[in-house]
Amino acid sequence: MQLCPDKLNQFIMPNISTKGTAMPQSPIRKLVPYAEAAKKKGKKVFHLNIGQPDIQTPQIALDAVKQNNINVLAYSRSEGSDIYREKLAKYYAQHQIQVTAKDIVVTTGGSEALMFAIGTIADQGDEIIIPEPFYANYNGFATASGVKVVPVVSKIEDNFSLPPIAEFEALITQNTKAILICNPGNPTGYLYTEAEIKQLCSLAKKHNIFLVADEVYREFAYEGVQHYSILSQLGMEEYAIVIDSVSKRYSMCGARIGCLVSKNTAVIDTVLKFAQARLSPPTYAQIASEAALDTPASYFKDVKEEYSERRNTLIQALKTIPNLKVAKPKGAFYCIVALPVQNAEKFAQWLLEDFSVDNETVMVAPAAGFYATKGMGMNQIRIAYVLNKEDLLKSVEIIKQALAVYPN
Amino acid sequence: MQLCPDKLNQFIMPNISTKGTAMPQSPIRKLVPYAEAAKKKGKKVFHLNIGQPDIQTPQIALDAVKQNNINVLAYSRSEGSDIYREKLAKYYAQHQIQVTAKDIVVTTGGSEALMFAIGTIADQGDEIIIPEPFYANYNGFATASGVKVVPVVSKIEDNFSLPPIAEFEALITQNTKAILICNPGNPTGYLYTEAEIKQLCSLAKKHNIFLVADEVYREFAYEGVQHYSILSQLGMEEYAIVIDSVSKRYSMCGARIGCLVSKNTAVIDTVLKFAQARLSPPTYAQIASEAALDTPASYFKDVKEEYSERRNTLIQALKTIPNLKVAKPKGAFYCIVALPVQNAEKFAQWLLEDFSVDNETVMVAPAAGFYATKGMGMNQIRIAYVLNKEDLLKSVEIIKQALAVYPN
Repeated sequence: MQLCPDKLNQFIMPNISTKGTAMPQSPIRKLVPYAEAAKKKGKKVFHLNIGQPDIQTPQIALDAVKQNNINVLAYSRSEGSDIYREKLAKYYAQHQIQVTAKDIVVTTGGSEALMFAIGTIADQGDEIIIPEPFYANYNGFATASGVKVVPVVSKIEDNFSLPPIAEFEALITQNTKAILICNPGNPTGYLYTEAEIKQLCSLAKKHNIFLVADEVYREFAYEGVQHYSILSQLGMEEYAIVIDSVSKRYSMCGARIGCLVSKNTAVIDTVLKFAQARLSPPTYAQIASEAALDTPASYFKDVKEEYSERRNTLIQALKTIPNLKVAKPKGAFYCIVALPVQNAEKFAQWLLEDFSVDNETVMVAPAAGFYATKGMGMNQIRIAYVLNKEDLLKSVEIIKQALAVYPN
Repeated sequence: MQLCPDKLNQFIMPNISTKGTAMPQSPIRKLVPYAEAAKKKGKKVFHLNIGQPDIQTPQIALDAVKQNNINVLAYSRSEGSDIYREKLAKYYAQHQIQVTAKDIVVTTGGSEALMFAIGTIADQGDEIIIPEPFYANYNGFATASGVKVVPVVSKIEDNFSLPPIAEFEALITQNTKAILICNPGNPTGYLYTEAEIKQLCSLAKKHNIFLVADEVYREFAYEGVQHYSILSQLGMEEYAIVIDSVSKRYSMCGARIGCLVSKNTAVIDTVLKFAQARLSPPTYAQIASEAALDTPASYFKDVKEEYSERRNTLIQALKTIPNLKVAKPKGAFYCIVALPVQNAEKFAQWLLEDFSVDNETVMVAPAAGFYATKGMGMNQIRIAYVLNKEDLLKSVEIIKQALAVYPN
């Protein structure tokens, strides 16, 4: 018997798992080699592609780490230190969320909180309903957990508001364990209204499934609109799981400290077992995060003003581009833009490889990777407005000139 | 129809996953409330139950964090910074392990490296063979990944040396994806010989499965015996995956920095996808870990001497206790002790609740939680010799007096 090369290969090296093979590549990362090549050629690249803010981390957090008096860098508690969780509970109380330290498990970033949440509520083959477009790594966490993402399309025409609740209900099966939302939304910038949150809460209760809300952009709400947490809704004690993180709130992405919050004691007890297996969240970052809770209110006022102005600058400039559609964000620091091109990923690559204005170009995130449905968002990009206004205006001008000459 | 209370409960709150329910509790944690109660009563408790060293973290690592000049605490690269991985490659070269930066993915502790390894090589229902007793959290990582641990018993009478290789081979099925060892071993303290490693390597190659080695205690080898890495063995490029961590090496358990090392590019590419989904390892801890690589050799000489003396002191003292059996460790800082009791967990609880000498008692880890086979190790405990010699001697004396009066 003659073996084909593929088959032969199986005999000479062990296989990667089906799960590992299915793990998605970062949709942003694919373009990194082109950005690196552009920089090597001396091009300046404006990065609108990642949610890494340029805002300074609060001094009080930075100082706490510099002034630490650790001699033995020991494990912390698996659930995070008591004092940090107690301070967190007070922070939540200021945001109309009534929880105590025992409702909180400190995690290594919001990422780990999401992994623990999925592991706690879903088994292999179970389903989680998510309005798309959504934060691309939800696909990764679901794949790593063997869980199926069931998308509900939200539309750029509707500013990515909540799709009709009947569309969610129609997708609920025996295998549905939760609805997952990101509020305010990455990548949409949409901020759910209280009425929308109430609809989701009612549906979760009606079908006895969890409602998981990624609220890491809680502070970033514009036009004077208040963020409304699923934990503020009465009667949601057993159903609501909130994912949180210090990454964006304090421009501390590299800390890798998040938390999971729930009034459901069975959820917290189970999450704690996952947390114990990995021992503890990082100690230095917990010092920074605890100190960050004392950040003066003026910091947030300034940051919010800065983002609000960036948002206005960006949207106004984008609207001058012919045949371009943009959903005006109400929160977070992203927006989705529909371009007059067939394939936004090819356009993004072309921007890096073949286009520049005064030797400057732009890197954007193709939005298709933020959808679970194949073929959706092909002409869309996500823009993160994490640059100063001048650079944002330059970036939009580059996109404008690029679209005028792009060989579509 | 009348519903039983359990059934009724299903209708009024959503369920925890089967996986979450199956997640094991930490075998050490179960006794924590008894230790806390003892302390509240004013008893001093010597902690022989956890692998948290009392050794000072290298000054060079502590200083690097205190002197950092970060203004925006940004994400690092998902795979860890280039400079840290290049320095790591040099560290490995000093230990007869020839790898480059691209063979290394920096992780959030050895824990995450193990989770990534299991996800990369095994799907739900797949099997990993592990000699028992083994590090208890392997059970947690396997459960979280839906993977089955298949144990091979190693015996205290044999000092926990490698069981006959035929016993491993007899357990290999279509579902076997890897053999996992911890070398030197937690909780056994056993250090595999080069001959034993070669046997495991041959078996992995013969059956085309991975060999995963948790080598986080690499430096802790006594009696002049050298640690032998699976990556030092020729022809293992496609089969060997090493799990590593700075936690024990530099007494930096709270850093939460580890890494996964493999020459198999498909493994590294897949691990990187898991790493990208969680964005990056913690930035401050990476600064500490990078600086720690410049720790002077004298630090390790002193630490090794200290542990070697603690080991000798502990073993010598334990041998004076009648009807007690101890496997003399060759590495790491643990040993397994078989006590003349029926149930070591009950004895450990009794030590905390009902016994003291001069108002001092001892907390030990019942060893049953380090076995996958139910009923194994029931009379065994794990002792971590992470205390100074004086405290170790006091602790052994307490155990000795306790055993003399314990109502077995």
